[in-house]
Amino acid sequence: MVYIFLRVNGIPFESRSYQLVKREHDNAEFEKINVFKKVPAIAHDGFNVMESVAILRYLCREFKVADHWYPREDSRAQARVDEYLEWQHLNVRKPLVAYLIAKAILPMRTGQQSPPEELERLMKDMDACLDQIENIWLRDGAIFLTGQEISIADIVGACEIEHPRMVGYDPRKGRPKLSAWLDRVAKATSPHYEDALVRLEKVVVKKSFDID
Amino acid sequence: MVYIFLRVNGIPFESRSYQLVKREHDNAEFEKINVFKKVPAIAHDGFNVMESVAILRYLCREFKVADHWYPREDSRAQARVDEYLEWQHLNVRKPLVAYLIAKAILPMRTGQQSPPEELERLMKDMDACLDQIENIWLRDGAIFLTGQEISIADIVGACEIEHPRMVGYDPRKGRPKLSAWLDRVAKATSPHYEDALVRLEKVVVKKSFDID
Repeated sequence: MVYIFLRVNGIPFESRSYQLVKREHDNAEFEKINVFKKVPAIAHDGFNVMESVAILRYLCREFKVADHWYPREDSRAQARVDEYLEWQHLNVRKPLVAYLIAKAILPMRTGQQSPPEELERLMKDMDACLDQIENIWLRDGAIFLTGQEISIADIVGACEIEHPRMVGYDPRKGRPKLSAWLDRVAKATSPHYEDALVRLEKVVVKKSFDID
Repeated sequence: MVYIFLRVNGIPFESRSYQLVKREHDNAEFEKINVFKKVPAIAHDGFNVMESVAILRYLCREFKVADHWYPREDSRAQARVDEYLEWQHLNVRKPLVAYLIAKAILPMRTGQQSPPEELERLMKDMDACLDQIENIWLRDGAIFLTGQEISIADIVGACEIEHPRMVGYDPRKGRPKLSAWLDRVAKATSPHYEDALVRLEKVVVKKSFDID
C-alpha cells in the first residue's frame, strides 16, 4: 500500500524487497530502520518510520500531497478517515491475516495443512468483516470508504482486502458494492494498483510472501 | 482512556455508561452514535466519532489541547506517536483482549472455564507484548512511550495495560521500566487516572465490564 501511494503521488523512492518466509528481513541492517523488523518501514532524510498507517500519514505531511488523501483543514473529514484506519486493524487486518496464516503460511512452515474446521471458522470471520465493508462502510451509495474522494483509508482497505486472493479466496464474490469500490480505487490509482496486483499474482504462483 | 483525557484537559462532557455484558449498548439510540454499537463513541456538536484513537485525535484538534498530547507542528514527533497508536492494535490490544475474553468473558457467558492450555498460550502472548513495551518502547531511559513528554500514546497504552488486572494479572511484575512508566502516566494525569482505576477495581469485584 505504501508502494501504491508513493507511485500515485510521484514521490521518488528506492525500494528494498525482502522474502519474508525466507526471513530475509531478519537482519541488523533492517533492524536499524525498524526495531521490530517488520515491513513496511521507510527511511526518509535520516528519519525512520514504521507501521503502514503512520508511514502514510507522515508522507501526506512531508510531501504535501493533495488534501483528499488525508484531509488537513477539515477536522470532520479527517476524523472519518481516522475512524476507518483505526477500525481496520482488528476488524479487517486481524481476520484476513489469521486466515492467510492458517491457510498458507503455517502449512508452508510445518508441511501440514490446518484443520478444515479451523479454516472454516477463520473464513467465517473473514466473511463477516468483508460483509461489514459491503453493508456498513459502503452503505447509502458511498463512493469511497470515508467520503466522496479517495483517501489513504481506501488504499489501506483495498490492499488488505486483495490479499486473500493469494490463497484463492475472492473477496468480491456476492459483494457488488465492495467490487465496484475496488474498481474505483484501482481506477483512481492506475496503473500502480494493477502493478501491485501483478506482484500479488506472482505470490500466488511463487508461494512467496514479500508483500506489504 | 477517553474519560481520562477529557478530565485531564478540562473538556466538559456528559457521559453515558453501558453494561456491556448485559448488552445495554445494543440499542437503536446508541447505533445512531456508532453504527457498530461499540464503545467508546462521542457525539460533539452534531458530529459522531467512534474508535478511541480517532476520538482522541479529534479532541486534540477541536479543543486545542497542549501540543505534547499530539504534536501538530513537529512532524517527526507526531510520527512517533502515530507509530505507537497504530502498532498497539494488533500487538497490545489484540493479545490483552484475547486473554480477558478467554479468562473472564467467555466463562461468564457459557458458565465454563477455558481450557488451561489455551489460557497458558494466551498469557504467553500477553507476556510477550508487555515485554516489548518493557524492552523496546521503554529502552534507553525513555520517559514516555514516544518522547520526553506524555502523549495520547501513553494514555492509550497505560489504559490497555491496566485491563488484565481485572482478571488478577499484574502487568508490572518483573517489569521495572513499565512499572515506573505507569507511575509517571498516573502522576501526569492525577487524580483522573486513579479515578478510572477505581472503576476498574469495581469491575474486578462486580464482574461487570462497562470499561472503555
